[in-house]
Amino acid sequence: MNFASDNVVGASAPVLEAIVRHNGGALPSYGADPLTLRLTPRFRAVFEHPDLAVVPVATGTAANALALSVMVPPFGLCVCHEEAHVMVDECGAPEFYTHGAKLHGLPGPGGKIAPESLDGYLAGLARHVHQMPPRALTLSQLTESGQVYTVEEITTLSRIAHSHGLAVHMDGARFANALQGLGCSPAAMTWRAGIDILSFGASKNGALAAEAILVFRPDLAETLDHRRKRAGHILSKGRFLAAQLDAYLDGDHWLANAAHANRMAARLAAGLAGIPGVRLAWPVRGNELFPILPAGLDAALRRGGAVYFGWASRSLPPGETVGEGERMVRLITAFSTTEAEVEEFLALARRAG
Amino acid sequence: MNFASDNVVGASAPVLEAIVRHNGGALPSYGADPLTLRLTPRFRAVFEHPDLAVVPVATGTAANALALSVMVPPFGLCVCHEEAHVMVDECGAPEFYTHGAKLHGLPGPGGKIAPESLDGYLAGLARHVHQMPPRALTLSQLTESGQVYTVEEITTLSRIAHSHGLAVHMDGARFANALQGLGCSPAAMTWRAGIDILSFGASKNGALAAEAILVFRPDLAETLDHRRKRAGHILSKGRFLAAQLDAYLDGDHWLANAAHANRMAARLAAGLAGIPGVRLAWPVRGNELFPILPAGLDAALRRGGAVYFGWASRSLPPGETVGEGERMVRLITAFSTTEAEVEEFLALARRAG
Amino acid sequence: MNFASDNVVGASAPVLEAIVRHNGGALPSYGADPLTLRLTPRFRAVFEHPDLAVVPVATGTAANALALSVMVPPFGLCVCHEEAHVMVDECGAPEFYTHGAKLHGLPGPGGKIAPESLDGYLAGLARHVHQMPPRALTLSQLTESGQVYTVEEITTLSRIAHSHGLAVHMDGARFANALQGLGCSPAAMTWRAGIDILSFGASKNGALAAEAILVFRPDLAETLDHRRKRAGHILSKGRFLAAQLDAYLDGDHWLANAAHANRMAARLAAGLAGIPGVRLAWPVRGNELFPILPAGLDAALRRGGAVYFGWASRSLPPGETVGEGERMVRLITAFSTTEAEVEEFLALARRAG
Amino acid sequence: MNFASDNVVGASAPVLEAIVRHNGGALPSYGADPLTLRLTPRFRAVFEHPDLAVVPVATGTAANALALSVMVPPFGLCVCHEEAHVMVDECGAPEFYTHGAKLHGLPGPGGKIAPESLDGYLAGLARHVHQMPPRALTLSQLTESGQVYTVEEITTLSRIAHSHGLAVHMDGARFANALQGLGCSPAAMTWRAGIDILSFGASKNGALAAEAILVFRPDLAETLDHRRKRAGHILSKGRFLAAQLDAYLDGDHWLANAAHANRMAARLAAGLAGIPGVRLAWPVRGNELFPILPAGLDAALRRGGAVYFGWASRSLPPGETVGEGERMVRLITAFSTTEAEVEEFLALARRAG
Repeated sequence: MNFASDNVVGASAPVLEAIVRHNGGALPSYGADPLTLRLTPRFRAVFEHPDLAVVPVATGTAANALALSVMVPPFGLCVCHEEAHVMVDECGAPEFYTHGAKLHGLPGPGGKIAPESLDGYLAGLARHVHQMPPRALTLSQLTESGQVYTVEEITTLSRIAHSHGLAVHMDGARFANALQGLGCSPAAMTWRAGIDILSFGASKNGALAAEAILVFRPDLAETLDHRRKRAGHILSKGRFLAAQLDAYLDGDHWLANAAHANRMAARLAAGLAGIPGVRLAWPVRGNELFPILPAGLDAALRRGGAVYFGWASRSLPPGETVGEGERMVRLITAFSTTEAEVEEFLALARRAG
Repeated sequence: MNFASDNVVGASAPVLEAIVRHNGGALPSYGADPLTLRLTPRFRAVFEHPDLAVVPVATGTAANALALSVMVPPFGLCVCHEEAHVMVDECGAPEFYTHGAKLHGLPGPGGKIAPESLDGYLAGLARHVHQMPPRALTLSQLTESGQVYTVEEITTLSRIAHSHGLAVHMDGARFANALQGLGCSPAAMTWRAGIDILSFGASKNGALAAEAILVFRPDLAETLDHRRKRAGHILSKGRFLAAQLDAYLDGDHWLANAAHANRMAARLAAGLAGIPGVRLAWPVRGNELFPILPAGLDAALRRGGAVYFGWASRSLPPGETVGEGERMVRLITAFSTTEAEVEEFLALARRAG
Repeated sequence: MNFASDNVVGASAPVLEAIVRHNGGALPSYGADPLTLRLTPRFRAVFEHPDLAVVPVATGTAANALALSVMVPPFGLCVCHEEAHVMVDECGAPEFYTHGAKLHGLPGPGGKIAPESLDGYLAGLARHVHQMPPRALTLSQLTESGQVYTVEEITTLSRIAHSHGLAVHMDGARFANALQGLGCSPAAMTWRAGIDILSFGASKNGALAAEAILVFRPDLAETLDHRRKRAGHILSKGRFLAAQLDAYLDGDHWLANAAHANRMAARLAAGLAGIPGVRLAWPVRGNELFPILPAGLDAALRRGGAVYFGWASRSLPPGETVGEGERMVRLITAFSTTEAEVEEFLALARRAG
Repeated sequence: MNFASDNVVGASAPVLEAIVRHNGGALPSYGADPLTLRLTPRFRAVFEHPDLAVVPVATGTAANALALSVMVPPFGLCVCHEEAHVMVDECGAPEFYTHGAKLHGLPGPGGKIAPESLDGYLAGLARHVHQMPPRALTLSQLTESGQVYTVEEITTLSRIAHSHGLAVHMDGARFANALQGLGCSPAAMTWRAGIDILSFGASKNGALAAEAILVFRPDLAETLDHRRKRAGHILSKGRFLAAQLDAYLDGDHWLANAAHANRMAARLAAGLAGIPGVRLAWPVRGNELFPILPAGLDAALRRGGAVYFGWASRSLPPGETVGEGERMVRLITAFSTTEAEVEEFLALARRAG
């Protein structure tokens, strides 16, 4: 019953098998191997984009920070949600890779930036030399509160950003879960909606340590390889990243994994709905739940062996608050979560509730 | 017959098995798992050092650059050999991680810095505000020319560096090969000889993607974790790095691998010695050979399917030169190199020689 | 009638005369001249501090950014008011000089950070590797809203900061005006109240282009000279900065200048108090006024030749708002402001009011 | 008899008078004043260039580092002479402003890079991701050895650089002296010969603290103002820099100053030629002399009150060496050097020689 995160488990079976299968034999190093080279046509097919560039890395922080480093100059601003992972959980990686750009966090319920909020902020910025000019917008999909931007919202936000001269990045650490939540195509949720670069997450959904930076605007890809090298993010045995991503895409394995995780989250949510005193802070849109629990129930669950994190957020829906005797917590399901685990958790909750 | 590098092959069997074995089950992420935590006592035992800190990363470039970033301030100098990997092959990673420190390359045969060269350089530096102050020395062991520093040489160089206020780093991308070449203990070749931080390489000697920064001076370790996080080098599934390093150390697997690779290199060298017109630029001290071949032999070997790189170096022994009709090349053996491959290469050379 | 800023005028007569007086003859360059060397004992006497270090620079942005660069590592946080100059008006200079540290802005009326706000923020920060650790607090004295921290407030804030391991910086761009506003000694308002480094402003109060970084903790001064050099902020003809600062301190010229500017601000405020529909957003504590005017009066003043900036701030006192037909503006007086200018402005306001 | 540098004296009379003359009255700050705005047409006229951008700063180090920061990305190489000021005398300012670019120094007699040396170096660079790509060439005019590049040499070097995709910078700390030495027009020595950005020095030739970055390629100027601001190099009282540069250009004051300094250097050289045992390491091309003196003469000169620096250089003409009992020294004349000083020095030398 570990719902702490979708990164507490290892790789899915197909991904692990691919790592093993491609381990043998001599291959060119530093990404010149055929497996790595094949990633480009594969991703182009999945995203229906003829020119996208693929840059594999081992971590989501590296993917995000490298992506932002080609969008924001050292003296520029990057706009994000105030609770975005890049803002609060990466120990300044964006600042490091951009050489000092500033992140500006906008508030908004559910971890989402509202179009009027973005437009108002950008329109209100003074454009003189004392002010860092805004150069990028980054959206998290799923958000830190497990919510999704609809295709229409992404399109609107991108249009606003582009009209002010900003490029648009999507942090897709849980891209597959969001995609399954929306039920649209990868292209629809990204470049067709105005996304310029995507951090395509895989580690949280079946890979062991693999993400891909997908660049939809070729000009933004030009310096990425040199930046990746000097960050120490080109693995000498490139096959390791390539094998994972290859197996991840193969036979829509990634979509199946995310669909499963989302189903487990929905099942958890449905079960929790029947327990007195429990409500969800936000609706379930992917594989994350944020129940608000009576403190006693929280304690009983932990005593019973359930593992998860408490959660604090300023991004609650209007009118929602966490009461004195309540706790907000975060439950995350993964590709590997079983129905049995869900039911065990629910049974425990019912007994304690 | 691929002698291009020791990173053209995948992981050794025990390392791969460890990755698979530790894949299942839920474990805390970001390095809080028991396997990662166990690395510290394991490395302390191997290096006979009670306080060393272990920081695992996926690449040698990251290991080197992170290590230097805690030794050299942004306005400082780092002294290295002019052909060192950090100087010529990492696309400015040390400069990135140190925020602009300068590497100063000293010449010297065999990729080695001579004590008098180091002392003369440091003594000759002006110490005023216009001059970047020297803060670190980094030694490559094996060097870029496949040579080793003896324990005495390391001790002397460290003493000179320390006496001028510099910390000392060792780039041990091929640490195990050097160690087997010297036949001494890990402690003798490092901290007992004055090394403050070691980039302990594993990827070239059996791991898939794993290195460890070993810090022998606790004060230098203080900021390393934050620096690693903001560089995107903390893997969420820390077990992946830990499993590799654990298996790598287990039962002296790493030493056996290196001993094998070195034996294969010695066998290649012995075989080449009997071929007319072939000589080695430097003696074999580990798993690298740098034969100078007649151009025709070089062409014949490549036509025959041998894979390796040509090599240029200013670091030749006094009196040695590569003649007009000659080519210097680099041959590297690995843990996975077979006697059959070596013999096939030699047979090809004999036929063509 | 130019009340746009205290930097729209040149140098005061004694400062200008000192520049001219010290222009002749050969002197060692880069700050080795006797005039620069004399700054240290002079500042030590003024601040009653036996060990303070003096680092002169030409701009306030350089002073602030250099000061922060020795207090905050690249992966650290600097806490400031959300409207602080370092946060919104220096185009990322602190981020540049610190190599990517993050500024976190706290809200608070009058541009002031409240002790409970600081304490709550610091206590609430997670201390793990994903989070940038807080390392410095910077206070603006005068604040961006022209307010002063009392000695007690500075002491309390410094104590909180120190107890959490932060160093404390004061941005004293209008240090003299604040000091005259409080009527205390330079030592009382700085190091005796816990300030570790002060950006001692002079350019806004009589100098042409001169500020001094005053370091009260010797350990923080160690790297400052190398940092200043590599930022291009060591003038070859150091006499230029030294002559200004010497004349600025001489005979308490700086205090007289600030006292005059403050008197002119008080006179403006008193006059505006008698004009219907005009109120001050905050009380006058130095040489800055923030009147809220009927829009018609604002327009009439500008038509009549008065020069000043409109002002927006989230830092208004509780209950205060700028109404639909109102404008908040900023008026700044300087050492050179004359009573005649003040009266001319007030007469214009009375006619239009 | 101070020949230590051309920055040991203050401003020339016309420059000082301009500072005083423009001190009074209120003017917009941060470079929006009319005097600053007038610099652009003035420099465009002097350089016969319709689009050049002018960015005034207070120091040569800032001018050079800012110029390079728009030419070289953080992962790029900048080629310079191995003894260039940017390489050895700016404490890493280029590395700071470029965020970690690497300077690569080429050897060459007289501080000059030879075309074949540049071409060979650039042609020999591997172009893969492990290698920092070369992006700029910087030439010092006068060189560190007081030599000049001819217009033809600049043209050839620029053509080579451009053909490899590099932009070309000129460090003109002693631009006027070099120009007078060559006897050509400012346009001929710069953009017509391929220079893309010039650091136009004034502080060493009559200004107190003023340089101008002159950008001949408008695209390279786009980010310069934001970069300058975040470096703290926009003075609030912009008139100070503008007044100096205005007076410096006025009536060809700058050319007259340089011509005088060069004449004084020539006179010194002619006088030294008659003294036994004295020879010049390089011919005099501007206002710098590098005599090689008997050690006894050097000591006698210093005892007699002459002030100058000893000098070490690897850049001696072929065949030249500094003997055991000899000293190489550097003598610099300035706009303010008098014939009397020169004659006093020569008389002292003759007595001691």
